[in-house]
Amino acid sequence: MGDLEIRRAVVEDVPAIVALLADDPLGAQRESPDDLTPYLAALGRVDSDPNQHLMVAVRDDRIIGTLQLTIIPGLSRMGANRSIIEGVRIHAEERGSGLGTQLIEWAIDESRRLDCQLVQLTSDISRTDAHRFYERLGFEASHVGFKIRL
Amino acid sequence: MGDLEIRRAVVEDVPAIVALLADDPLGAQRESPDDLTPYLAALGRVDSDPNQHLMVAVRDDRIIGTLQLTIIPGLSRMGANRSIIEGVRIHAEERGSGLGTQLIEWAIDESRRLDCQLVQLTSDISRTDAHRFYERLGFEASHVGFKIRL
Repeated sequence: MGDLEIRRAVVEDVPAIVALLADDPLGAQRESPDDLTPYLAALGRVDSDPNQHLMVAVRDDRIIGTLQLTIIPGLSRMGANRSIIEGVRIHAEERGSGLGTQLIEWAIDESRRLDCQLVQLTSDISRTDAHRFYERLGFEASHVGFKIRL
Repeated sequence: MGDLEIRRAVVEDVPAIVALLADDPLGAQRESPDDLTPYLAALGRVDSDPNQHLMVAVRDDRIIGTLQLTIIPGLSRMGANRSIIEGVRIHAEERGSGLGTQLIEWAIDESRRLDCQLVQLTSDISRTDAHRFYERLGFEASHVGFKIRL
């Protein structure tokens, strides 16, 4: 088994990322892997914003995980940067391998490097395994996450 | 009583914004209104990122509210933009006046205008009044919000 590499996503990675997003109980209902056009346009928007870090985890030339880290500057907490983790997905064959931990630890380290004082994420109430996972990594379930669809 | 204006924050607004951030049960412990230096630096970082919208609500030349809207492009949900609302504060004398509703409705309208398909925010578990407020505005408490301090 080769080494794990965590690197920035490029356009050639889009099909594999979309497959990861769709291979998920919630994602299956809201992704369209047969038409990559909207995803390629979205990658352009991500790449044009230096505060977005869309990452892939690669081993033996296979994309086995992804996450997006967003840096948000702001005035609160004495002008602290914070970061937000979104879109964490691990390939079905890699779940339980420790890859999720490696990806989240990468995101925490990168947030520290980019002067963030806080890392935050939300997880659907139904994802109870994920909640235990984040608590094991030191996250505190201190907030209620609200969403509204437009 | 004059008209309400919701506009982008400028450097002259920083003392009033910091006062609002500090006049809060949680914010009182983590802000330093006597030294604006870190806040002014943070405003520079906010202004240099076109996806950040730090807003103030102004009436009769007084700043009576603030929030920050962040647009996050991403691949999930067919390449949807989402927005995040942070740092919502209403002046003590204006609470219960409907200003919070006007600010959040502004953020929702602006998110729609900027092609977001989702607006999200997190609220500390202790802020139960805020939770009822967001639910009345149509938000769903669908997620658990995790944070880790660095």
